[in-house]
Parts: sequence; C-alpha cells; structure tokens
Amino acid sequence: MAVYTEVSDEDLEAFVAEYDIGAVESCKGIAEGVENSNYLLQTDRATYILTLYEKRVARDDLPFFLGLMDHLATRDFPSPTPLHGNDGAALRDLCGRPAAIVSFLSGMWPRRITPAHCHALGIAAAQLHVAAADYSITRRNNLSVSGWRELVTATAGGADRVSAGLGKIVSDEIRYLESAWPTDLPSGVIHADLFPDNVFFLHDRLSGIIDFYFACNDFLAYDIAVCLNAWCFEGDGSFNITKARNLVQGYATVRPFASEEIAALPVLARGAALRFLLTRLYDWLNHPEGALVKRKDPLEYLRQLTFHQSVAGPAEYGLDAA
Amino acid sequence: MAVYTEVSDEDLEAFVAEYDIGAVESCKGIAEGVENSNYLLQTDRATYILTLYEKRVARDDLPFFLGLMDHLATRDFPSPTPLHGNDGAALRDLCGRPAAIVSFLSGMWPRRITPAHCHALGIAAAQLHVAAADYSITRRNNLSVSGWRELVTATAGGADRVSAGLGKIVSDEIRYLESAWPTDLPSGVIHADLFPDNVFFLHDRLSGIIDFYFACNDFLAYDIAVCLNAWCFEGDGSFNITKARNLVQGYATVRPFASEEIAALPVLARGAALRFLLTRLYDWLNHPEGALVKRKDPLEYLRQLTFHQSVAGPAEYGLDAA
Repeated sequence: MAVYTEVSDEDLEAFVAEYDIGAVESCKGIAEGVENSNYLLQTDRATYILTLYEKRVARDDLPFFLGLMDHLATRDFPSPTPLHGNDGAALRDLCGRPAAIVSFLSGMWPRRITPAHCHALGIAAAQLHVAAADYSITRRNNLSVSGWRELVTATAGGADRVSAGLGKIVSDEIRYLESAWPTDLPSGVIHADLFPDNVFFLHDRLSGIIDFYFACNDFLAYDIAVCLNAWCFEGDGSFNITKARNLVQGYATVRPFASEEIAALPVLARGAALRFLLTRLYDWLNHPEGALVKRKDPLEYLRQLTFHQSVAGPAEYGLDAA
Repeated sequence: MAVYTEVSDEDLEAFVAEYDIGAVESCKGIAEGVENSNYLLQTDRATYILTLYEKRVARDDLPFFLGLMDHLATRDFPSPTPLHGNDGAALRDLCGRPAAIVSFLSGMWPRRITPAHCHALGIAAAQLHVAAADYSITRRNNLSVSGWRELVTATAGGADRVSAGLGKIVSDEIRYLESAWPTDLPSGVIHADLFPDNVFFLHDRLSGIIDFYFACNDFLAYDIAVCLNAWCFEGDGSFNITKARNLVQGYATVRPFASEEIAALPVLARGAALRFLLTRLYDWLNHPEGALVKRKDPLEYLRQLTFHQSVAGPAEYGLDAA
C-alpha cells in the first residue's frame, strides 16, 4: 500500500508530454510497492505504471535499477520496461521526486501459493540470473551481513519490547552468520525481494516480475533463500517441502546448482530470514505516526529463522546434496 | 486510500465469470474511496471498477445506491454504471462481503481547484438533482441534524483533547442548528459527499462523479452547502467567493434556486461544516491501530464553521437574495 505523493493533473500532463504515449485519461494511485508511490496511468493508447521514487530509494541507485530493467527487456525477460522520453531519458522529476514510467504487466500476484507457482518462480528466478549475467553496472547489496549488523545495533534497544528474548536471539544469530556466511559462491545480479506480491501470474502462467528496487549483486542462491522464506511457509508457520522442492527443481531446469550452493542453502535461508526479521523489526520500532503503510509482523520471520536453525541439511529444502 | 480486503485470483475469476466481461488480466487495489475496497479490474475487453463494501456501508442501503447509479445511467448522467451479471443481479458476494462491478470513468480529480471547476461542478450537481428527481427508492440522511447530535454526544468526552474549547463550540453549534435548521426546502436525492476526489475532469471538462455511498434524500441546497465547504476554501483557510459564485451560478443555469433556498444557504453551510467536523473528530478519536486510512484533520472544518458563523447573508456566497 503506497501512495505518498499527490500528483496534480497539470504536473502530470506536463510530465507525460515528454513521452510519445498519447494523452492522459486516468491516473490512479495503486496499492503496489512499499517503498514508492505507484500510479496506474491510462492514456488514449495504453496502460502504464508511473512510479515516484520516495526517500527510501537512493537517487544514485536509480540508473542501476532502470538500466537493469532495460537490459532484461532486451532479453525478453517479463519485467517492466522503462519508457524513454523524447529526450532519451527514462528518469526525470515529478513533484520534486525522481520519477519514471514503465510498461504495464498483466497478471495478479498469487494470494494462495501452490507448488506449481513455486516451480514457475524457480524457473523465472534462474532466467533472471542468466539474463542479467552480462549486465554491466553493479550495485552492492547493502542489506547483506554488514547491513544486518547495523540493523541489529539500531534495534537492540527495542527488540525485547516486541518479544521477550528477541534481542539475544538476534545478536546470537548475527554472530553465527558473520562467521558462517559463505565467501565464494556463484554471484551476479539478484532480485533480492522475490515475494509473492512481486510476481504476477495470468491463468496459471507466470506473466511478470516487478519491483527491482532491491536488486543488487550478491550470491545467486541467496535469491532462492529469500524465496524459501517468502513462498514455502504456510500461514500456520509450517514449512512446505513440496513447495520448496518445486522451487529448487524449477530453478535447476534452467541453471543447475553448484554443489557449494546446495551446501550453503541452510545458512543462506537463515540469513534471509534474519534480513526480513530485522527490517520489519526496524520498521516496527520506527513506524511514523500517520504512515499509510501497514506494519508487518517481524515475528513471522522469527518463526522461519527458528525453522532454518533446526534444519540438518539441504535435503530438508528438497535439494539433494551433490 | 482504501484496500481492506485481499481478493484471491481464484475467487476473483469465479466472481467475474458471473458477468459477460471477458477474462481477468489484472486487478489492482486503488487509493480511491474511503469506506470501501476498490480495485481497478482489467479484462481482455475493458477496464472496470470492482468494489467490496466494507462494514461502514450498510448492506440494506446497497440496493438504493446501485439502483440510483442504474437510474442515473439511463439519464446519461456521468456516474459509474453497475454491471448486471448473467443472473441479472448487480450485487453479489466476494470474500464474504457484498461486492459489485461498475463501469470505469475516465478523468482525474482536480488537485488545484479553479473557479472553472466550481462552475462545472455546480452544473453537474444540478443535473444530478434533476436526473434523480424521479428515482423511486428513498433513503433518509442519517448524517443530518439528529445524526450530528449523536456524534456530538459520542465525541463530547474527547473533543477538548483535540483542541481546547472544541467541546463547547460543538455543543453550542448543534443547539443553534437544531433550532435554525430549515424544515421545508425543495428536497430530493443528493450526493451528500461532493468532495473534489469524487469529481473527475478530463481536459478541463467534468467527466464523471463517483462514490454515491452517502447519497440520500435531503434538501437539494444542502449538496451545494457541502460543495461550498469542500471546494471554495483555500489551503490557508480563506474563503474564495469567486469559486463560490461560479459554483452557485453554474448550478442555477440548470436549476434556479428558490428564494428560501438562497436564504437558508448560510445555515446549511454551517451544518455541512459541522457534519464533516464531527465525523472527522469521531474518526480522530476512534482511529483503529494499524488502519490504512490516514486521519483527516477535524480542525480544518472548525475554521470553516467559524467562517460560516460570521457570514451576514447569502450574498457572501455570491448569491443574490431573491
């Protein structure tokens, strides 16, 4: 749920006049994306997405994100394609914020995850990794281990207010991950936020992946670790190994896992669980009064972290150790 | 900003199959309407609005609202037209809530109000009153004087926490309005919530009026009193008589005011200001934790009420006493 900036019709018409996309007929704020203001923009020619980048997205990172979407479009990956204006630029300003128009993707994100969704997701994640392999710009993942340490420090004072003992669990876990985190796995551009609301399906076929605003360079298998957390747990907190198996097997049909990636998956899954636990915990403790974004429960990821801590090996994710 | 209910793709496809509108391609929650969940629904044929009625809208009132929109559509008034399913019904259930699909209206609501907007609004309000004159169902305005008295009682304990002295201002005003409220003005179906975000313009032409979920039978001139409050004050709280004159003159080109309506406008404007002051005050004091709706400042309407209290006569709204 995110519409932070009100765009006037005059400002919008002047902005759209920079593109060859026809005349504005409608522009409605949509409940999509958490970090930015998103609008469904309809002209007399087609439907587009207009995004205004709010302060949590660094302006300096935008050329990486938009360039990545341009790159993926040339590889026929189903991501939004940035529109370039009459001056060639994809990024300009609207209402004092960086803003871009991207193509509209059909489909809906799945509310009830099935193993078939997970299989299609695995395939698409691997296709993304392959398609982005020759993208020339890089961006460090500032939400990897060193970034988590910063969040542990920033939330230390309030963690036990959210759940008794949470502070110690988190500080023990970051110490473990700092020592156990892999240093030499296959790397490249990852999406880093492959949650169900970023993956569209149309009539059971994966039709698009959106929201590349956490994309960065990191271990490819870390994307799968995020997916294990975001797609393979049931509402009651139980882990669904059938979904996990579909995810990793789908992935492997396009890009087989290296043996060290398989071995590392349990620690990567712990890291991914801690990453979302920490950002949600931080947002929970720093929720601005009057914000329109609903706070997400950090403890959901504590349950998932606890599961991953108990895992004996990659077989529990449906992966056979090589 | 309002999306309260998550609709799964399976539920949505089953729902849409009851209509002859093609196959779903996309469905996005939009930031439109405060009381209900609204989605922009795209099929392979056209764009529609899907509304799920949340608990603040009484199910028993829905036939009045949908029937009114049906009625207006036959009079070519630019309001959303309810779609009727293969069984003839416009209202059915989705995710445990009453739900309907209505036609999509082009246009955007104006963020910067001009006198020309107010003139077009006045014309459309009068056209609405004329078009709805022979609508056969009626609905009492439960947010008129007796409803305000209930809200005064419900907010009495907290009003002074919002602003010192507010409780007395409100209780004095309701006592005045109970004695001064007109009893015999031209009546009919009114919109009762003609705020800028419910009125769309496309290339400077009024293209649609939406959100009929406060519509009811009341004095026709009360709709104009609401518009005076919602359209004719500047951000700094000053009253813009040019906008007011455009509003009432636009209205009078379609439906001339009776002399008793002109005389009553100052008291109606006070009532409209108190009505929005009271509902905002109630919402402010009863804001649920974690709600996605941004609280609106009740004191904006205190400033407007104070203005109307100081008005000497209808000429200050740009109306010549008949």
